[in-house]
Amino acid sequence: MSARPAVVALGGGHGLAASLAAWRPLAGELTAVVTVADDGGSSGRIRREMPVLPPGDLRMALAALAGDDARLQELAALMQHRLGGNGVLAGHPVGNLVLTGLTEMHDGDAVRALDTLCRLLGARGRVLPMADVPLDLVAIVDTVDPDDPQRSRHIRGQVAIAASPDRVRSIRVTPADPPVHPDVLAAIARADVVCLGPGSWYTSVLPHLLVPRLRAALADTSAHVVVVLNLEPQAGETDDFSPEQHLRVLHDHLQGVPLHTVVADESSVVDRRGLLSAVREFGAELVLAPVAAVDGPPRHDPGLLGAALTAVLPGVVPEVRR
Amino acid sequence: MSARPAVVALGGGHGLAASLAAWRPLAGELTAVVTVADDGGSSGRIRREMPVLPPGDLRMALAALAGDDARLQELAALMQHRLGGNGVLAGHPVGNLVLTGLTEMHDGDAVRALDTLCRLLGARGRVLPMADVPLDLVAIVDTVDPDDPQRSRHIRGQVAIAASPDRVRSIRVTPADPPVHPDVLAAIARADVVCLGPGSWYTSVLPHLLVPRLRAALADTSAHVVVVLNLEPQAGETDDFSPEQHLRVLHDHLQGVPLHTVVADESSVVDRRGLLSAVREFGAELVLAPVAAVDGPPRHDPGLLGAALTAVLPGVVPEVRR
Repeated sequence: MSARPAVVALGGGHGLAASLAAWRPLAGELTAVVTVADDGGSSGRIRREMPVLPPGDLRMALAALAGDDARLQELAALMQHRLGGNGVLAGHPVGNLVLTGLTEMHDGDAVRALDTLCRLLGARGRVLPMADVPLDLVAIVDTVDPDDPQRSRHIRGQVAIAASPDRVRSIRVTPADPPVHPDVLAAIARADVVCLGPGSWYTSVLPHLLVPRLRAALADTSAHVVVVLNLEPQAGETDDFSPEQHLRVLHDHLQGVPLHTVVADESSVVDRRGLLSAVREFGAELVLAPVAAVDGPPRHDPGLLGAALTAVLPGVVPEVRR
Repeated sequence: MSARPAVVALGGGHGLAASLAAWRPLAGELTAVVTVADDGGSSGRIRREMPVLPPGDLRMALAALAGDDARLQELAALMQHRLGGNGVLAGHPVGNLVLTGLTEMHDGDAVRALDTLCRLLGARGRVLPMADVPLDLVAIVDTVDPDDPQRSRHIRGQVAIAASPDRVRSIRVTPADPPVHPDVLAAIARADVVCLGPGSWYTSVLPHLLVPRLRAALADTSAHVVVVLNLEPQAGETDDFSPEQHLRVLHDHLQGVPLHTVVADESSVVDRRGLLSAVREFGAELVLAPVAAVDGPPRHDPGLLGAALTAVLPGVVPEVRR
């Protein structure tokens, strides 16, 4: 691969922001395909008030792609700024309200609204929703309380799933076959690289594979499919999950989507042999590299992750980041 | 006056927006000094939640000054767009929330937030608040109900004053001597023209004269002071007021502020002799011109108002407006 690759990054939240920051200097064309199943926080409050996509994950991806110029970074900071005070506006990031207003102004056309915001922010890429309608996650969980007469139950909604102590057994989206914007399908079709994760596994990474039209596009693409594993399990979602278990859950949902490369942080993997065995079982290649930030809370370092991704893609030369 | 004049336009709401639209092609430098006494609608809801200036009138002035480019006009439309739905966000113009967020982000510095938004909108001028703190209007009204045991009462707040059927006798602001940003005082000091009105007389035009530091700056400036009268009385504020009475109320609050020219719509003036007599009594010159929009609800036509203002200022050649 000699030209810089066309990359589609799938996910949501901080994980997707980290992935976008890593890909940004490497990709020739960069498209974020963002989960729209959030029902918590500001996004949840907004989607209960009006028929728009939950804007939070979309806004975070936009901010991660904003241009380097000081004025563009100030705008990105404004989009991320949460309103204060003690009233009903408190906690809403300005960008969620801006994206909602723009979508309303464009008669519900979220993609047009996102493109307008991308231009405004001088974004180094494009942000698209994984579906054209808001989704709800529905999980079947195994109850952890031994006295609970039910062995399993359905839990609906991202917040409820994340808050439940019960272990997720399976997950689906509703509506079951939502429309997907043609630009999403086209970006996946022409991608050189598709990247899943890192991020909340059940609520930001897997949902893309639960949307049939998106999964079909991923199964059809000739892109190199990379999965970036999380640094640690997430409480309520993947407690005690090893990297191998993360991968196994993902694999259960691939249903025809190829898996070429798995990137894991070398110091987060306890059982290297177990992970390597799972990666090989799924026909993929394992890249173990130092991708975690050196200090602060556990998170991916965009520069280190970018370096590891470069190794995955020989011939891709990263820009020097500011 | 040969170069294009430095103009300071004082007011609020739709009246100020009309004045700004008229001055925009005429002024070399254009500064809007905007009322911050609104306590109704979105502005009222916001100022009850957080300690910021009521953003509504500031936002309208910003939108009126936005650049002509289609993308800037789209942004201006977004700032004016009111959120929909049936919840607590409904009715908030996006720009009110953006201005509030920017002000919070800049630690309460509303002028810095306004300058940022002006840049973003490619504004043809600058928008400044008439005071650095939110104000409340307090009116003494004469009761209209003959059975009311009270002959007069105090009413606090712009909404309450506008909603009351009682006739306003006098009005003041609280706090009584609010701080005024130095850039406001400097703009008035170097202005060639200061323009008051049109607009809600008691709640958008007079308040500027009730702020002592602003009134002092207006009394000291060597600028040509123009007053643009309203087309018709406003229910609850100036019912049955003739143009002459509008002028007389204004004059009562001038206290040393000069008055050079009064612009009135020629077809809105019934008693020309009475108005002329009042204008002359106050030492000013009367310009009667067709400045009302030809059809639609009563409002000033920016082009016609601009033409009348050009006549006030010989030597000022307006640009051709798009």
